[in-house]
Amino acid sequence: MIPDDQFVKRVPLTKEEIRAISLYKLSLSKDDIVADIGSGAGGMSVEIALRAKKVYSIDLNREAIENLKENLKKFNIKNCEIIHGKAEEAIKNLEFNKAFIGGTKNIEEIIKILAEKEVSHIVANTIVLENTLKIVKLLESYNYKLDIVLANISKAKKISPGYIFFSHNPIYIITALL
Amino acid sequence: MIPDDQFVKRVPLTKEEIRAISLYKLSLSKDDIVADIGSGAGGMSVEIALRAKKVYSIDLNREAIENLKENLKKFNIKNCEIIHGKAEEAIKNLEFNKAFIGGTKNIEEIIKILAEKEVSHIVANTIVLENTLKIVKLLESYNYKLDIVLANISKAKKISPGYIFFSHNPIYIITALL
Repeated sequence: MIPDDQFVKRVPLTKEEIRAISLYKLSLSKDDIVADIGSGAGGMSVEIALRAKKVYSIDLNREAIENLKENLKKFNIKNCEIIHGKAEEAIKNLEFNKAFIGGTKNIEEIIKILAEKEVSHIVANTIVLENTLKIVKLLESYNYKLDIVLANISKAKKISPGYIFFSHNPIYIITALL
Repeated sequence: MIPDDQFVKRVPLTKEEIRAISLYKLSLSKDDIVADIGSGAGGMSVEIALRAKKVYSIDLNREAIENLKENLKKFNIKNCEIIHGKAEEAIKNLEFNKAFIGGTKNIEEIIKILAEKEVSHIVANTIVLENTLKIVKLLESYNYKLDIVLANISKAKKISPGYIFFSHNPIYIITALL
């Protein structure tokens, strides 16, 4: 377990409980090579790297790449290859068997490539309703078997009268298996 | 990942996403020995056994023990010791460094013993409000550092017009670290 506050965070970070569920759904082993598409602050990349053979962390945003680098250094991650660029171009020439999608543009093209490569496990986190449905329909069209979870997580904070709960935004966790 | 429907279930089973978060909070390694207190159908025992050195699965209910045995057999688990009896008596004489509490009676006595044994990670799942607060206050009294999550998980099912979400009961996941 890496608590959220251990990460350097200058761009959005996948939160602890969502990382936990997403990692579980990816069923990682030391043989897996994973593409982290839209790696952001690198929360999932760090966790995947600790459990898999290799992770390719891809993001278009320069600040995200800088933030990712800080977290890779902090957690001494050596099995992560950073790719600053468009995911649909990057993943074409990479070999990997699982993918995590934290956020991306051109999702149609990306899922098409993942399906062509017969990527066996795809886990996507979505917050925007339109993207959620689009990803679900795309994955269905490539005959993936879907599991869709809506997670509403609240975390307690102690204030003077006692514990109160602060809600995180609802997140969809879409798992697609071949 | 073991989907819920892979388990034999005749008594309550900790559900997939709650198992994922609870496992993450336990930060298991191959050196850990874990007490699963109120092991029920054995969902957490199976998952812990796959990630730790050993698990002691303790339950007072005979049907739970039978259900646990079926799941241990199904998943070919060899590093689980089954204890049919009162947890507060069982754990006194066992050596372990982490504990998962899925449900139990005599929680005061149990947490007292866990604290005396300096168990470094305790994760409890609660659904009853009274038990949640009781466990929180007990753990605080022994100077554990607490993280309290309220998880509301819904899962999609496809019916003729499309996906609808079925809600699981809200679960508190209390993590106590020394």
